[in-house]
Amino acid sequence: MSHWLSKRASLTPNRMAITFQESTWTFSELLETTTLIAKKIQSLSLTNEPVALLIRNTAKGIVLIHALQQLGLSAVMLNPRLRSNEWEFQLKDSSAQLLIVDDQFEEVIREFEDKLSVLSIAQVEQLDSSNEPLIEHERDVCSIMYTSGTTGQPKGVLQSYENHFASAVGSALNVGLNVEDTWLCAVPLFHISGYSILMRSVIYGNGVRLYEKFDEEVVHQDLVEGRATMISVVSTMLTRLLNIRGDACYHERFRCMLLGGGPAASHVVEECFEAGIPVFQTYGMTETSSQFATLAPEDSGRKIGSSGKPLFMNDIQILNSHHERCESNISGEIVVQGPNVTCGYINRREANRDAFKNGWFYTGDIGYLDEEGFLYVLDRRSDLIISGGENIYPAEIESVLTSHHAILEAAVVGKKDDQWGEVPVAFAVQQAGETLAENDLIAYCKEQLASYKVPVCVYFIEQLPRNASNKLLRRELKQKVAEQYEDH
Amino acid sequence: MSHWLSKRASLTPNRMAITFQESTWTFSELLETTTLIAKKIQSLSLTNEPVALLIRNTAKGIVLIHALQQLGLSAVMLNPRLRSNEWEFQLKDSSAQLLIVDDQFEEVIREFEDKLSVLSIAQVEQLDSSNEPLIEHERDVCSIMYTSGTTGQPKGVLQSYENHFASAVGSALNVGLNVEDTWLCAVPLFHISGYSILMRSVIYGNGVRLYEKFDEEVVHQDLVEGRATMISVVSTMLTRLLNIRGDACYHERFRCMLLGGGPAASHVVEECFEAGIPVFQTYGMTETSSQFATLAPEDSGRKIGSSGKPLFMNDIQILNSHHERCESNISGEIVVQGPNVTCGYINRREANRDAFKNGWFYTGDIGYLDEEGFLYVLDRRSDLIISGGENIYPAEIESVLTSHHAILEAAVVGKKDDQWGEVPVAFAVQQAGETLAENDLIAYCKEQLASYKVPVCVYFIEQLPRNASNKLLRRELKQKVAEQYEDH
Repeated sequence: MSHWLSKRASLTPNRMAITFQESTWTFSELLETTTLIAKKIQSLSLTNEPVALLIRNTAKGIVLIHALQQLGLSAVMLNPRLRSNEWEFQLKDSSAQLLIVDDQFEEVIREFEDKLSVLSIAQVEQLDSSNEPLIEHERDVCSIMYTSGTTGQPKGVLQSYENHFASAVGSALNVGLNVEDTWLCAVPLFHISGYSILMRSVIYGNGVRLYEKFDEEVVHQDLVEGRATMISVVSTMLTRLLNIRGDACYHERFRCMLLGGGPAASHVVEECFEAGIPVFQTYGMTETSSQFATLAPEDSGRKIGSSGKPLFMNDIQILNSHHERCESNISGEIVVQGPNVTCGYINRREANRDAFKNGWFYTGDIGYLDEEGFLYVLDRRSDLIISGGENIYPAEIESVLTSHHAILEAAVVGKKDDQWGEVPVAFAVQQAGETLAENDLIAYCKEQLASYKVPVCVYFIEQLPRNASNKLLRRELKQKVAEQYEDH
Repeated sequence: MSHWLSKRASLTPNRMAITFQESTWTFSELLETTTLIAKKIQSLSLTNEPVALLIRNTAKGIVLIHALQQLGLSAVMLNPRLRSNEWEFQLKDSSAQLLIVDDQFEEVIREFEDKLSVLSIAQVEQLDSSNEPLIEHERDVCSIMYTSGTTGQPKGVLQSYENHFASAVGSALNVGLNVEDTWLCAVPLFHISGYSILMRSVIYGNGVRLYEKFDEEVVHQDLVEGRATMISVVSTMLTRLLNIRGDACYHERFRCMLLGGGPAASHVVEECFEAGIPVFQTYGMTETSSQFATLAPEDSGRKIGSSGKPLFMNDIQILNSHHERCESNISGEIVVQGPNVTCGYINRREANRDAFKNGWFYTGDIGYLDEEGFLYVLDRRSDLIISGGENIYPAEIESVLTSHHAILEAAVVGKKDDQWGEVPVAFAVQQAGETLAENDLIAYCKEQLASYKVPVCVYFIEQLPRNASNKLLRRELKQKVAEQYEDH
């Protein structure tokens, strides 16, 4: 495959590629800047080892991503919110030969410069340009993103060019492709949700409206005024948008709210459905290079809680613990196949052996397919709470909790229990100005849930712990309750 | 890859798949009918050899195409306008094990039933259904379409599932993909132009509005009333549409007039540009499974006569006779690369060796790229005559002419024609002492050639113009007929 940005700039040089802060770049301008940076990086005479990026969501970050692709160098996308020992692990594990960091992270340079080559973006810009024509290394692995598994040891997911291309095509075959689309990106570029927006942009010829951070007021205005036609969100972003929406209508050009990053509460999806907001609920992960299954808005009303059907090139099986296919409506492990599925984790022979069998990837997630083939994701396997032999899926309880008018968001985890093995406990964030009593909330749950699913206690907190991509850090909550258990 | 129609029917069962005459089928209904026919064909216990189809543009023809795909059987697409000796050659050459013919072609059954299994569609419908679950053969070659080369010997182009998929994706990345699109198909299903519409339909989830024949009055009304948003045409169809258009405007939903099958006259493209008709001029061939390069309407005004740029996954080189790249604006052979390019001709080792070098396919067509990379096709395979969208290879007609005992040698060239673009005319040298009449020779051709290939006139001459190395100076003959055309 040729360099996507180069090909795109050749096909549609004058279309808008990026809007960031007050500036706009066409594909032709973006390629010009990218080639300049690629020539500077080439002067370093790098080998084919990956280059790590520690970047925020900025236009310069985008340029770096395309410059590495132009040189055929894999990019290890580091998460700025991690601790330095976590970065160190990923740099070593991926054999990164160079780390390029956003100018904001100056102290990182001092910390790592003894360990590998480290440059700030400003330093890259000051390099001399190579006089040689650009050398493209073999293009195979495009990006490497680390994801924590159930073991806690992060694994580097290898995402090939083919994976990203298939992901973009699968998405277009599902939601359509309009040459005038603009995709709002307020999710992190170092995460597959943001990175895949960039790939779709150069493959489709669509613009990206980039934000460093998610600000619901700003995004709301964009959607109302039609400055974006597509947006990727996780459920907490959607909730924040709904909270300020009032009677406003999004612009008629706005046609896709891609909702990923874990199951959304039913009442949120219902609210969108009633307001005519085109929410596409998706199931996907770093290992599937973004969306794998998606629920179309036309099915949202009758399939509340589903993540839809696998995209055109994708297949799903639900397997029981004997690796046999489950019947409809029987839950088991979600096992997937398709050209957007990673070829594996870098340097993890054992994890790869466990995850891949007969060309299928075992996600570790639990779910079922209904009689029409719609996927319902119950939970990440590691989050499953088993109480007295009954399976409890936190998402189900969380959805009840947040359906209470006083509750903004909630998370449920298991707590060890001498009698039942585990019992569910809840963490809840109240809406501003609300002062709900714990007992009242538990009583509310009792009305709607089988007794074994009712949280034994609710901790009201200011906010839920989330990572940079806004994904709930359930592990931190588990640890809190585990410590309490030990004290009891 | 799974069976595309099955996957499509699972994703969007209730969307319109086909409209033909007074009837409409959803994807779910089309799959149901297709599966029924596939089970009947399965009862014949076929091997993995191809099945030939001799079909008109009808809904039943579409069902047969999908049924063969469901069984993983390659389809040899026969052109109903050919003569029976031409069909016989293709059936033998492809080792077809079964021929299914449209009920209209009853006499073909009688003619071929001694040579291989032949069934009419009505006979297929009367077969018992296999009780076994559907067996899918290995899916690799999807379709085989014959195209005549310069040698006159037709060659079967192998079109894989991957070729068709890449072609559909390349087209969508260029013209966009709207879930509500309907593609009007009045080009033949046995050609790549029509067959590819069917493939895009199941891959995109778009409807096909099928016509048995092109009727400009009917098509005009469809475009005016918005019953189709996309249409594939060859230039003679476009001319006929423009002739009756008057002051009518096409519906605002109509967004793509895909113009293929050879270069269009500049004034036609200009007229479309001025009328705001969204013409996408394309360059493509059977060997590239439809479009390879396309000119966007936005560039039509300033790039009159160009076929645009290679699609996203495609590359073009212009090579001189030493296989070196030509500079901009210097013409040479058009050499192409991409996932929609055929892997080769069936059973043609030598032709394959000539056509494929270092992963590039040598089209034999002559053209150049301008300084911005826009392709201009000067001559299709130097000698190719394109008449109403059908390719006519002089060598094939010449070989028929010289097979007549009275003819010593012959040459065929194209003559401009207001209705068909070009029509074939012949120059013939008689054997000493022979005095064959023009009409008799034309009658002789009619017995052996599809009518569109029969020369409209034959000029008897003393000898053919040849250069010192005895190579036919076809250009001189072309010039003669061109002068006559201008006088007419």
